[in-house]
Amino acid sequence: MNRRSDIVIEEVMPAVDNGNFPAKASEGSILTVTARIYRSGSSRIRARVASKHSSDRKWEYAPLEPLGNDLWAGKISIRKKGNYSFKIQSWDDDFGTWREGILKWAAAGEDVKQDQIAGVQMLKTYLRNTKGNLRTKLSQIIRSIETASSSSLKDILTDSDNIETVYLCQSHHGLVSSRTFKVLSERKEASFSAWYELFPRSQGQPGSGPGTFADVERRIPDIKEMGFDVIYLTPIHPIGKTNRRGKDGSPRAKKTDPGSPWAIGSELGGHKDIDPSLGTVEDFLHLVEEARKNGLEIALDIAIQCSPDHPYVKEHPEWFYRRPDGSIRYAENPPKKYYDIYPLKFEGPHKKALYEEMKSIFLTWAERGVRIFRVDNPHTKPFEFWEWLIGEVRKIYPDCIFLAEAFTRPSVMYRLSKIGFSSSYTYFTWRNYDFEIKDYFTEISSDPLRAHFRPMLFPNTPDILPPVLQTGGRAAFKMRAILAATLSPLWGIYSGFELCENEAIEGKEEYLNSEKYEIKKRDWFAPGNIRKFISVLNRIRKESSALMEIGNLEFHTTNNPNIIFYTRKSIKTGETLMIAVNINPFETHQATVEVPLEKVGICNDLPYRVTDLLTGATYTWQGEKNYVRLIPDERPAHILRIGD
Amino acid sequence: MNRRSDIVIEEVMPAVDNGNFPAKASEGSILTVTARIYRSGSSRIRARVASKHSSDRKWEYAPLEPLGNDLWAGKISIRKKGNYSFKIQSWDDDFGTWREGILKWAAAGEDVKQDQIAGVQMLKTYLRNTKGNLRTKLSQIIRSIETASSSSLKDILTDSDNIETVYLCQSHHGLVSSRTFKVLSERKEASFSAWYELFPRSQGQPGSGPGTFADVERRIPDIKEMGFDVIYLTPIHPIGKTNRRGKDGSPRAKKTDPGSPWAIGSELGGHKDIDPSLGTVEDFLHLVEEARKNGLEIALDIAIQCSPDHPYVKEHPEWFYRRPDGSIRYAENPPKKYYDIYPLKFEGPHKKALYEEMKSIFLTWAERGVRIFRVDNPHTKPFEFWEWLIGEVRKIYPDCIFLAEAFTRPSVMYRLSKIGFSSSYTYFTWRNYDFEIKDYFTEISSDPLRAHFRPMLFPNTPDILPPVLQTGGRAAFKMRAILAATLSPLWGIYSGFELCENEAIEGKEEYLNSEKYEIKKRDWFAPGNIRKFISVLNRIRKESSALMEIGNLEFHTTNNPNIIFYTRKSIKTGETLMIAVNINPFETHQATVEVPLEKVGICNDLPYRVTDLLTGATYTWQGEKNYVRLIPDERPAHILRIGD
Repeated sequence: MNRRSDIVIEEVMPAVDNGNFPAKASEGSILTVTARIYRSGSSRIRARVASKHSSDRKWEYAPLEPLGNDLWAGKISIRKKGNYSFKIQSWDDDFGTWREGILKWAAAGEDVKQDQIAGVQMLKTYLRNTKGNLRTKLSQIIRSIETASSSSLKDILTDSDNIETVYLCQSHHGLVSSRTFKVLSERKEASFSAWYELFPRSQGQPGSGPGTFADVERRIPDIKEMGFDVIYLTPIHPIGKTNRRGKDGSPRAKKTDPGSPWAIGSELGGHKDIDPSLGTVEDFLHLVEEARKNGLEIALDIAIQCSPDHPYVKEHPEWFYRRPDGSIRYAENPPKKYYDIYPLKFEGPHKKALYEEMKSIFLTWAERGVRIFRVDNPHTKPFEFWEWLIGEVRKIYPDCIFLAEAFTRPSVMYRLSKIGFSSSYTYFTWRNYDFEIKDYFTEISSDPLRAHFRPMLFPNTPDILPPVLQTGGRAAFKMRAILAATLSPLWGIYSGFELCENEAIEGKEEYLNSEKYEIKKRDWFAPGNIRKFISVLNRIRKESSALMEIGNLEFHTTNNPNIIFYTRKSIKTGETLMIAVNINPFETHQATVEVPLEKVGICNDLPYRVTDLLTGATYTWQGEKNYVRLIPDERPAHILRIGD
Repeated sequence: MNRRSDIVIEEVMPAVDNGNFPAKASEGSILTVTARIYRSGSSRIRARVASKHSSDRKWEYAPLEPLGNDLWAGKISIRKKGNYSFKIQSWDDDFGTWREGILKWAAAGEDVKQDQIAGVQMLKTYLRNTKGNLRTKLSQIIRSIETASSSSLKDILTDSDNIETVYLCQSHHGLVSSRTFKVLSERKEASFSAWYELFPRSQGQPGSGPGTFADVERRIPDIKEMGFDVIYLTPIHPIGKTNRRGKDGSPRAKKTDPGSPWAIGSELGGHKDIDPSLGTVEDFLHLVEEARKNGLEIALDIAIQCSPDHPYVKEHPEWFYRRPDGSIRYAENPPKKYYDIYPLKFEGPHKKALYEEMKSIFLTWAERGVRIFRVDNPHTKPFEFWEWLIGEVRKIYPDCIFLAEAFTRPSVMYRLSKIGFSSSYTYFTWRNYDFEIKDYFTEISSDPLRAHFRPMLFPNTPDILPPVLQTGGRAAFKMRAILAATLSPLWGIYSGFELCENEAIEGKEEYLNSEKYEIKKRDWFAPGNIRKFISVLNRIRKESSALMEIGNLEFHTTNNPNIIFYTRKSIKTGETLMIAVNINPFETHQATVEVPLEKVGICNDLPYRVTDLLTGATYTWQGEKNYVRLIPDERPAHILRIGD
């Protein structure tokens, strides 16, 4: 029977489904790893985390420190993009066990001669694998212990240089390793960015025709000024004519109706082609480049479905579902049928060819400079398909980011994240009351979800104009923007939000005169807009490491359900923001909020200054309970940093 | 590419460390299994649990039902002792998907001819593997669908006999299986029993010498009357003389001091031998048999450690730790040494022989009829040792029960449970305030712990006389007994508890004149005893299926922290008890307690009767909030069943 330690390593974090899927991290970030580590008996142990990037040859080690109750923690530096591995290792600390014992015996006045000899014997085994300078130093320590009196022993064994030297030489008796866990490191934008969604055809200037890529280019300074990082375009492909939908989705279109951009494909082309009214491939490349020069990035919406006029229908009829009479099956959700869309058939003998073609769509756009894809309804295609496709695309373009638009059940959303999507839409639009917001964001900001799930918060989308925005006016738009911008590092708006557009179809959460079915022209600087407010939010985000990190959100008590109070604390810098929001856009509210003093680093009852990053105003707070008064529109929130 | 479903099976429960260790169950119980099961898209799925005992050849199947949010649940009947396996299986429900769609299309007035044909084609594939009567019935159903009008379709497809027939014939397209999970089924006493701990030498009668096994026999009717199931004896082996401890553990014993039963071994023998002053092996066998005849069982305390006089010290000096001067190391916990005890060395080249000898100790007592072992300080021996030993003993005696007395850190206690201990001591004695009791018992009654951790609650032990018992008198003894007897199916007392003995060493939680170091004689029927109260508690436990099950505890709100209110609901019978306890033994308290109406099956605001099982008194309650007034000693708690 070999000498093998009784050490147990459990509950390693971050881990997704026990390590079967990668956790996610951001290039340039620090990843905290924790594990429950213990052994039988009372001997001491030590532990470390071994990590490496797939391109590295050697493991890199960082110590784990005990936090109490057998929980240990350490940090991994995520310096590059790509795939990291890590494992937790622990071994018997025979030196530490011996040192603790002999110091206690000595302090209790016991005779320690025998322990002294035993310690010297143990330390001599460390010499075996120790060379050079370290060996000399260790030998000196051993000699000094050998000859030490009970009182001088204490000096030798509490000297931090000596302790460090011994640990550098320590044999790893009975080293136990956890399984290897995976981490997917993506570039910063995958976990921290602000998005602006627009319909390119609606960017035309007053008096001229429908918008083109050139018009989108003209809007870049405007979007940049608001502080956004990503311009996300609704689909830009040719739109089908057969069964085209008209105004507000009516089943029969007028001749002049432009159709929904999601009814993709016509005789002019399919998913790799551009609607000629928007411009050419060259125009598109120019837009991508112009955005890049301005520090912005173009994201595309990829919707895997076909209009009845899509070239695939003729070229690959085998990729569609057929009814017994040979007709192609429309997209359906009984008792509804979508006559302008055919779903693709991700099963059967032609699956492989379809998979390859779908991959080629993503690669085509990646070749044209697009590195961010917002994927429409990924949950209606197989998980296996996405896992394969995302892996394939990342092999060639490791900087590709995939956002899942899966408005479906939580388990399905979380699965898409596990299998490779960088980020995901959330239920944010349907979380309005304090308990709803707290429950939901606590769930997705906590283990196990925070290890992989990156929430993207849109207060509106072309499909969703929630009741609070319909009725709460400008104040509601500001309030929901604050929540979206500070509850997650990923947020975005669908254009028109900055103008507080809020006309809905009665009794529904859909826009009236939906932009999905018609071309708009807007005055982007119309009175009452909240452009400036949005730009302040985005500036605050870029200046705060706390707002850039995921999984660092914690809610705290207030005595008024209309006011929520939460903190975000940076793992990297320790910066902590305290945020109080009046979630009722109709009324001024006041509350006592409870500051988590220890967490924010205020340890006594002296007054402290807090600065509101929204306004620059400073306040003097004291102790745990502090008063806030928040006025819709005017001062809907405090985003507080401690200090002036 | 084969047809393989996109179904995902996750979060299978009960599972211990993802299935690496067995969950626990009780012979004759019903085990609820749950899993998160889902797939991409909107097709329907079905699921089942397959289970089998290791002695069975075939898997047995039980359906899983959806609970919402992709969570499914089903039940396994645990009929035998031993090792069970189970796995979750799920497959595409093409019939259900089709049925749901066509019914909706028909209801919406759509033409369903094509869907009808598609359904018939699908059902014909089910005929392939269907024979006999079922085939005839399925053929009839297919024919009726083939020729049905839109309106008669509804009758055919909502007929429960038809639906049942189709599902009996359904092909399991794309069947997906989870990994196999393990369940250890033990006899009922492993998870439900009441224990009475005694020192055999203290059972002697007034006027005669120290107690013997015959004296223990004489106490059986008395212990039975109190309703206990297990008589647990402190160690019965010869006690060492070298460095024997005296009164209250003093390092120097007087000649007349009997020594601690845990300082095991002398020239009279070791762990397989009996202290001759207690009796012979024959006397012991007689005691075991006498207990059995009375429906009681004898449990032994096994403490793996040796007095310096233990035969092992001479016969196997290699099993002990040596200091550099060759002397044997005492048990130590710096800066304390226990000079009456040597620890054994569970490592090194002689480990295997030591393991085998330890196993032979358990087998020796099992051969003598003992099937319950309370193991002293298992956490100071390797996990690997216990996993091996318990497995080996159970191979020969599958009905052996092992209780771990590991007062150590939670992770270590839980590990001992995972690797095979049937049950474990807990922190119960140190949980006194409402929040302490709620937090701790919610933790151990919830996933993942409730899958394997069986908590044994002792309000006192020879080592622990907690402050509340020292100061709270009879009322405190009753209150702690109620908690112990109703917070877990496993509870016990150390004898003297029924007499409310409460003399402590000042400032410590230890008994004054500790029975560990001296022989006692007591009047077991002394005035002020709570024997009757204990017998009522144990009777209530035996009449309530809710109190027999593990992991069914839930706390509810009260408006007074001195009164806690909890329910226990039986999975097997649905029986629910509501228990309110005044945890302050010094004062009468009243509170409004909040009844979980839905859970207890009260669905409206009509009055309902509740009966207190402690007193037989009935009360009329109404709605959620009800009033209780609890008087220490006199009426410290309500244990309520709904109804008269």
